[in-house]
Amino acid sequence: MNVIDTNFINGVKGFKAAGIIAGFKKSNKKDLALIYSEKPAVSAGVFTTNKVKAACVTLNMENIKNSNTQAIIVNSGQANACTGQKGYEDAKKITEMVAGKLGLKPEEVLEASTGVIGVSIPMDVMENGINEITGLISEDGGKDAAQAIMTTDTVSKEVTVEINLGGKKVTLSGAAKGSGMIKPNMATMLSFVVTDANISKEMLDKALKSSIKDSYNMISVDGDVSTNDMVLALANGTAENPLISEENEDYKIFKEALDYVNVELSKKISRDGEGATKLVEVQVVNAVTEESARLCAMSVVSSNLVKAALFGSDPNWGRVICAIGYSGGDFDPNKVDLSFKSSKGEMLVFKDGMNIEFDEVKASDILKEEYIIIYINLKDGEYSAKAWGCDLTYKYVEINGEYRT
Amino acid sequence: MNVIDTNFINGVKGFKAAGIIAGFKKSNKKDLALIYSEKPAVSAGVFTTNKVKAACVTLNMENIKNSNTQAIIVNSGQANACTGQKGYEDAKKITEMVAGKLGLKPEEVLEASTGVIGVSIPMDVMENGINEITGLISEDGGKDAAQAIMTTDTVSKEVTVEINLGGKKVTLSGAAKGSGMIKPNMATMLSFVVTDANISKEMLDKALKSSIKDSYNMISVDGDVSTNDMVLALANGTAENPLISEENEDYKIFKEALDYVNVELSKKISRDGEGATKLVEVQVVNAVTEESARLCAMSVVSSNLVKAALFGSDPNWGRVICAIGYSGGDFDPNKVDLSFKSSKGEMLVFKDGMNIEFDEVKASDILKEEYIIIYINLKDGEYSAKAWGCDLTYKYVEINGEYRT
Repeated sequence: MNVIDTNFINGVKGFKAAGIIAGFKKSNKKDLALIYSEKPAVSAGVFTTNKVKAACVTLNMENIKNSNTQAIIVNSGQANACTGQKGYEDAKKITEMVAGKLGLKPEEVLEASTGVIGVSIPMDVMENGINEITGLISEDGGKDAAQAIMTTDTVSKEVTVEINLGGKKVTLSGAAKGSGMIKPNMATMLSFVVTDANISKEMLDKALKSSIKDSYNMISVDGDVSTNDMVLALANGTAENPLISEENEDYKIFKEALDYVNVELSKKISRDGEGATKLVEVQVVNAVTEESARLCAMSVVSSNLVKAALFGSDPNWGRVICAIGYSGGDFDPNKVDLSFKSSKGEMLVFKDGMNIEFDEVKASDILKEEYIIIYINLKDGEYSAKAWGCDLTYKYVEINGEYRT
Repeated sequence: MNVIDTNFINGVKGFKAAGIIAGFKKSNKKDLALIYSEKPAVSAGVFTTNKVKAACVTLNMENIKNSNTQAIIVNSGQANACTGQKGYEDAKKITEMVAGKLGLKPEEVLEASTGVIGVSIPMDVMENGINEITGLISEDGGKDAAQAIMTTDTVSKEVTVEINLGGKKVTLSGAAKGSGMIKPNMATMLSFVVTDANISKEMLDKALKSSIKDSYNMISVDGDVSTNDMVLALANGTAENPLISEENEDYKIFKEALDYVNVELSKKISRDGEGATKLVEVQVVNAVTEESARLCAMSVVSSNLVKAALFGSDPNWGRVICAIGYSGGDFDPNKVDLSFKSSKGEMLVFKDGMNIEFDEVKASDILKEEYIIIYINLKDGEYSAKAWGCDLTYKYVEINGEYRT
């Protein structure tokens, strides 16, 4: 697998994209994205577990069943959630408008919205935007699309990799947005992965659902699960590799590449969490079950007290141990070892379930880096898990509590 | 029931207390408390659900089984958690020292510690402190005791009520500490309730465990469940009311008073959450099950996004609806109504699962008050629940991220 650090979509054969300023945001930033496959493509999707689902989620859960999916339209500024029957009708109309312009059926179009809950999409803005954007899609429009899906994100999040399947070069490229309302089981997180791989809809679905578990479902910015989350994958077969229709060697290679894209996008989302100054990776190893490893990792990365301590570069291992204690994961409290790691070094701060002497100043220096690893060895089994998050900062409070009338 | 706004313990017959500066805290504030019953008393306790339990919790879970409990010793400054076998031996030794001074058996003494995890109790400080405090206990020492259990609390939390049982005046008085690591299923929260009621150990235990469910288990400051949490109740029978040994009318009156004390202490803990500027009460009504009502209420009060919005007096109902959506509670998203309430008035902001027009300026004014109610009508059944929390502020981040080397 080659990691290609290039723009979203660039190099994925048969895909085009665009991102424009349609006028959904007051800020005059790009706010409408279109991703388009020139040929029929199979799709897979994973959607928010929130009981309150945005109209676009409800509609996509239907349209994703279609055997062909060729376009994804995304607006940022209005979430079109909690907007009732009108919201759903608007969502349908949007797919009809896109389909009309691109010569597709409405059910061949997927749709995502992100922004303020409870606000309807201004349909005149959408109509003008669709008229414009459908004329602008190009092979190098991926970067613009990746920027247009951003809300409070400070950077666009794009990952592209190349693999070789049966002698053919296959490219996978993903773009995501995150920032707030980020938590396992999908968050206000949108992620789109396109590939020219030749893979059946069933296997794409299987690969995506499996990949989610170790990527987007293992991140937390603030513990809030949004109404609008989704991850969509499109594969159009243009690479002409032998069709992947079972769990063969090619499937494994494809899956590994997909995992890489999703994990990298997850880390980018975590690092760019609202107000974040650091990316935190929690590694739990030697757990008695996979579930225990996951629960412990997610609990630590979700703890406000741990996150605030990391903001202050405080080697407060007590808060980490406390967080695994209430995680619901199974482990023996008397066996736990804990280390802090970064590019500045590694420091064991807790051993066999007990406090130990350590150099606090050095430990704090390790935590001053931008990429921190909290390494928890449960010494209780053979399962492991990783989770990602960020620190809790003044800026987070400012971003989310800034409303003043 | 009469609510007596007086010092902890004052008026509860047969109980004495004291609070002194023993030297556990660097700040030269009171840090050792002793609560003492002159006569034998029955006890009940509820302890942290964290898998990592402080030594005092482990020891109390044994000692609470004893038929007599006459003293509770509490230090603040060191949590004595994650301190291994030595921590447990220290905890035992402390009960032995207190018992020796008061003429009790060690198992008749309970113990609580609060403070930094992983730090052992300085036993010389403890020994001197016990020597001093056992000579100082008095009927009006409750206020000092309530102050001595504080950590980052800004005010002591005390509630006293009187009831009449079989012609006898019975008094219940509680003191609690909270502040950080506060979340359902006990938090770094200590609460002590003493009463002169004549009640069997079994019924006291039953009343306490039932009372916890609607009070301490329905609050959240930051979602972290501590290693040291406990609620202890002592009843010494000095009021000479007819013994409560079954669920009769007297039990109901007693339980109602106990509920009042625990709910008021829970609200005081929530209002004094680290950095908090507001007390938030979430009322969920007409839920299809009790569990759904509880899950929805706790999810809203625990959401960082909701808490940050309330800090900014932002009537951002979308975050509230989002939080009930991912709560795991059962409800019909199309039926939900939502209002914000305070002493400034009441405002319906969401109806039948949809956004409605409302006066945003007025809604924000309502949220500027110090005691806010988020009223959620699920219109789906007959169960209800209340939960309490606070806003998320810059100060919370400062308190918990202040470590700088």
